[in-house]
Amino acid sequence: MLTDIEIARAAAKRPIAEIAARLGIGAEGILPYGHDKAKISPEVIAGLGGRPMGRLVLVTAINPTPAGEGKTTTTVGLGDALNRIGQRATICIREASLGPNFGMKGGAAGGGRAQVVPMEDMNLHFTGDFHAVTSAHNLLAAMIDNHIHWGNALDIDPRRITWRRVMDMNDRALRDVVLGLGGPANGVPRESGFDITVASEVMAILCLAGDLADLQDRLRRIVVARSRAGRPVTARDLHADGAMTVLLRDALQPNLVQTLENNPALVHGGPFANIAHGCNSVIATRTALRLSDYVVTEAGFGADLGAEKFLDIKCRKAGLAPEAVVLVATVRALKMNGGVAKADLAAEDVDAVRRGAINLTRHIQNLRGFGLPLVVAVNHFATDTEAEIDALTEAAAAEGVRAIQCRHWAMGGAGAEDLAREVVRLAGQPSDFRLLYPDSMTLWDKIVTIATRIYRAGHVEASPAVRQQLAEWQADHGHLPVCMAKTPYSFSADPAALGAPEGFALPVREVRLAAGAGFVVAICGDIMTMPGLPREPAANRIRLDAAGNVEGLF
Amino acid sequence: MLTDIEIARAAAKRPIAEIAARLGIGAEGILPYGHDKAKISPEVIAGLGGRPMGRLVLVTAINPTPAGEGKTTTTVGLGDALNRIGQRATICIREASLGPNFGMKGGAAGGGRAQVVPMEDMNLHFTGDFHAVTSAHNLLAAMIDNHIHWGNALDIDPRRITWRRVMDMNDRALRDVVLGLGGPANGVPRESGFDITVASEVMAILCLAGDLADLQDRLRRIVVARSRAGRPVTARDLHADGAMTVLLRDALQPNLVQTLENNPALVHGGPFANIAHGCNSVIATRTALRLSDYVVTEAGFGADLGAEKFLDIKCRKAGLAPEAVVLVATVRALKMNGGVAKADLAAEDVDAVRRGAINLTRHIQNLRGFGLPLVVAVNHFATDTEAEIDALTEAAAAEGVRAIQCRHWAMGGAGAEDLAREVVRLAGQPSDFRLLYPDSMTLWDKIVTIATRIYRAGHVEASPAVRQQLAEWQADHGHLPVCMAKTPYSFSADPAALGAPEGFALPVREVRLAAGAGFVVAICGDIMTMPGLPREPAANRIRLDAAGNVEGLF
Repeated sequence: MLTDIEIARAAAKRPIAEIAARLGIGAEGILPYGHDKAKISPEVIAGLGGRPMGRLVLVTAINPTPAGEGKTTTTVGLGDALNRIGQRATICIREASLGPNFGMKGGAAGGGRAQVVPMEDMNLHFTGDFHAVTSAHNLLAAMIDNHIHWGNALDIDPRRITWRRVMDMNDRALRDVVLGLGGPANGVPRESGFDITVASEVMAILCLAGDLADLQDRLRRIVVARSRAGRPVTARDLHADGAMTVLLRDALQPNLVQTLENNPALVHGGPFANIAHGCNSVIATRTALRLSDYVVTEAGFGADLGAEKFLDIKCRKAGLAPEAVVLVATVRALKMNGGVAKADLAAEDVDAVRRGAINLTRHIQNLRGFGLPLVVAVNHFATDTEAEIDALTEAAAAEGVRAIQCRHWAMGGAGAEDLAREVVRLAGQPSDFRLLYPDSMTLWDKIVTIATRIYRAGHVEASPAVRQQLAEWQADHGHLPVCMAKTPYSFSADPAALGAPEGFALPVREVRLAAGAGFVVAICGDIMTMPGLPREPAANRIRLDAAGNVEGLF
Repeated sequence: MLTDIEIARAAAKRPIAEIAARLGIGAEGILPYGHDKAKISPEVIAGLGGRPMGRLVLVTAINPTPAGEGKTTTTVGLGDALNRIGQRATICIREASLGPNFGMKGGAAGGGRAQVVPMEDMNLHFTGDFHAVTSAHNLLAAMIDNHIHWGNALDIDPRRITWRRVMDMNDRALRDVVLGLGGPANGVPRESGFDITVASEVMAILCLAGDLADLQDRLRRIVVARSRAGRPVTARDLHADGAMTVLLRDALQPNLVQTLENNPALVHGGPFANIAHGCNSVIATRTALRLSDYVVTEAGFGADLGAEKFLDIKCRKAGLAPEAVVLVATVRALKMNGGVAKADLAAEDVDAVRRGAINLTRHIQNLRGFGLPLVVAVNHFATDTEAEIDALTEAAAAEGVRAIQCRHWAMGGAGAEDLAREVVRLAGQPSDFRLLYPDSMTLWDKIVTIATRIYRAGHVEASPAVRQQLAEWQADHGHLPVCMAKTPYSFSADPAALGAPEGFALPVREVRLAAGAGFVVAICGDIMTMPGLPREPAANRIRLDAAGNVEGLF
C-alpha cells in the first residue's frame, strides 16, 4: 500500500497555468510560484464582479475523534467527483501551519487518492502567506513598544497590552516572556508572550477581508491595549494599518494548486478553529464561486464549532449561503462515541455504532436548524462491516437524511460519485438558510443561544467580570457575532463527554474582543495558543533524501 | 527630476523567462515568483559544473560617510555598461532586510538610472528567503528549549546558551528577554533575546554553502551552547540540521531579477557586514560566473571591512579570485573625510578633497596588497567641480591607479562605459591574487594581521578572557578565518576618526565562534544586532496608494 506522500509524489501534476486556464484565467492572470503553485492576480479578481456565483457546498463532520473522520479527504474527493460527473467544481481549503509539522508527524492535505498537491510545499513555506501574517502582526507589536519607548503619547498602560507577538513555530518557551529588559535603550520592561501565527487576529482578518480596502479597515480597528484612562488603543492610533496592509498585499491573493486528478483547488488562509473562525478566506471562496459551478469547502473541527462559525461568522459577514451540507462520519468514530477504545476499533460492534450515532443525530438536527439540505458522507474504512454501515445508515435515515458510502480515499473521485450526485440533487432544491441569531441580539444572549441550541447546555456559567466585560462592549461591539473557543471533542466543554451530552453547564472563562476580525471570542476552558514540541519532535527525523525529497514530514 | 521609485515603476521590465533565456536557461530551468522574479532551479545549477567561469569583478568603496558613495549604484551601472560594450555581464548583490525598511526611509537596490527591479518586492518579502532563514534559526532555538524541557539529556547549561532567536523586524524590546516563564509547562526560565534575521549565523551559512550537502554540514556544526561540563553542544547533537536544511531548500536557490536595462541580476542572501561577512551568496556568484563573461559583485561597508572579508572569507572558502577591483569614491565623501560638514558639501573645497584623499589612498594601498588590479570609480554628483575632480584623480594617479568619472546614476549604463572598458582592460592583465593570511596562522595573529596591515593599528588590545577564549578554540577551530566586526566609518574602532588614522589601539572586546559559517568573529566596539524603530518610523507613512503601489517605503 502506498503512503500518502508516495501517492502525492507520483502525482501527474499539470502545469499550474493549465489549471488556471480551466478556470478561464490566462497566463497573465496568475502570479506563478514555481510551476505548480500560483496566486490569482488582483486584476482577475476585480474583473469577476459581475459574474454569477456557483453553488457553495460545506463539508463538516461529527465531533473529531482519534479514529479520524477524513473531512479534508472528503472535500477533495467530492470536488474530484463533481468534476467527474460533469460539473465544474473547485475546492477551497485552508493552508497548513508550518510550525506544528515539526512537532508531531503531520502535514498532508487530504489523504490516499484524494489529495491536493504539491504536498511538500503546502506544508512548508508555500507562497509565504503565513510569513506575511507573522511580519504584519509583529510590526504592530514593535510599533506598540516603540511608541511607549519614545514617550508614550497615547498613555498606553504597559500592563494592559493585549497584543502579543507571533511565530509560526511550536515554541512553548515563548508563551510567557518578559521583554524590554537590559536598560533604557531597550524599551520598557513588561510581561508579554508569543502565540502561533495561526492564532493571530491578523490571520482571521486576512480570511474575512473582502478586498484590500476592507483589509486595511479591519487592521485599523484592531484593539491592542488600553490607555491608563481605560480608552482602547487601536492599530489606527499607532498609524500601523497602512504598513501592515502593504505587508499583506500579496498574501491576500488566493493560492491556486490542484488535486491529484488535476482539478483546481484554492488553498488560502488558515485561522485557528478555536479562538478564530477556522475557515479558508472569504476572497478565495468568492473567487471560486465566480469561476465554478460548484465550490466545495470545509470548516474546522466538528459541526458544533466549525459549521456554526462558518455559517454565523463567515457566511453572515460575506453574504454567502451554502446550498448543501455534507456531514462526514465514519463507523470507527461512531464506535468511539459509543464507548469503544481506539485499540478495539477493528472488531465489529454494531451496538456501539448505534450508541455512538447519537452524536451524528445531534449534528444532523443542528444543521437542519440552519435550514440546510444535508447528506451524510460515510468515509469508508477497510474494517467497516455491512452491519455497522447499516446501523449508521439507519440512524441517518431516522432523521430523513441519506448516508452515502464514499471510497475516495482508495479510489479518488470515482469513489465519491454517489455523494456528488446527491449533493447536486440537494443543491437543486429550494434552500432556506437562516442564521442562528440576529446581529441585534446581545453578546451574552448570542453565547447563550449557541450554548443551549447547538451544544444543548443547560445554562452558561460566567464570572461577574466576564458579564461586566460583555456589557461594556455591548454599545460599540454588540452587533458582532460570537466566536466560541471550546474543545472540539465534545458538545460540552469536557473533552471526555462523547456522544450527545445535554443539560450541562458551559463555563465561559474569558472573553476577548477581536474588533478587526469582527467577533467576540468566548473561551470555554483552556485554549492553547502556542503549542510545544513533543519529547521526540518530528524535526529530529525530517531531512532531505538523496533525491531532494522531504523525509519525515508526513 | 524623477525619484528612484518613479524610475523603477516606469521600468520597461521584460518577462523573467526572457532574462533567463539570455543566460541560456529555459523556462523549465527557472522557478518563477510572479512574472518578474524567479529562482534558478537546482537542476540547472547542477548541470553547470563543467562550464568555464567568467571574470569576477569586486566593487568596494572608501569608508562610508553620510554623503553616500553609491556602491550598489555603481555595481548596477557597471554591469549595464559591460553589457553595452558587448560583454555578457551579470551582477550579484545582496537581498534587502525587510525590518529596517519600516524604521528609516530605506529600500532601493541601486539608484537613479542604475537600479534593479522589481524594487517594491525586493524590499518586502521578495522570494521568502529571509523568512526561511528566520524559520530555520528559530526551529533550532525551539529545539534547544524543548530538549531542556524534556529532561536535558545533553546537560545543556541554560546560562550558557548562545543561540538566540531572530526576527526580521526592528524591535528593540526583544533584545533582552526572559523566556520560559509561566510554570513548568512552559519550559525552563532563562535569559535570552532576539537578533534581526540578517545577523543570524544561518544567513551567513546560507551565503557560504556550496550546495545542499554543504549547507547541512555547516548547519550541523553550529555551536548553540555549552554543557555544564563545558562541552560544546551543536545543532547535530539536537538532530536539528535535517529539518533546518528542509526549511532552507528553496532559499538556497539564487534569485534572478533584472536591471532597468533588462540585464540579469542575481540577488541572493544578505548577511550582516559586521558580525558576518556581508556578501551575497557563494552559490549565486558561482552560478553567475558559469553563465556570464563578467560578474560584478559588491561587498558591504568600505574596503577595510567589506573587501577584506570578501577576499579572506568568501573567496578563500569558495575558491574564487576577482580579476579586477572597482573602488568607489565621491568628491563629496572625500570632502567629508577632509573635514567638511555635510551641510557644506555643495560648496567647492579642493583642499578638503586633497586632505580627504588620504582615505582613498589607504584603501588603494590595501587592495594592492591583495595583488589585485584596481580602478577608482568616481560616482558623479551635480555639485562636483572640475578642480575637485582633478584633485581626486591626481590622488589616485599618485598611486598608479586611474580614476574614472561615472554618470550611471543619471545616464544608466551609458554613463559607466569608460569604467567598463577599464575593467575589461584590467581583467585581461595577469593577476596575482593573494590572501592576507594563511589558514595556518593562529586566530590571534590573524586578528593582529588584519588590524595592523589593513587598519594600520599600532596594536590590538584584548582582555585575558578574550585571549584565553581564542587559545581554547585554536586546536579545533584555529584554521578558520577571522570576521572583524568594527565600525565601518573609520579604519579604527572610533567612528569619528575619519581620513587615515594609524598607530591607534584596536580593542577586541569579545570573540564569538561561528563554527557553521566557518569563521571566528572579533568584535571591536559595540555592535547592534537588533535595531530599534525611530521616534517616527517609516511604517507610520507606508501605505498602498489607490493604484496598489507602495507609498512611503522609499
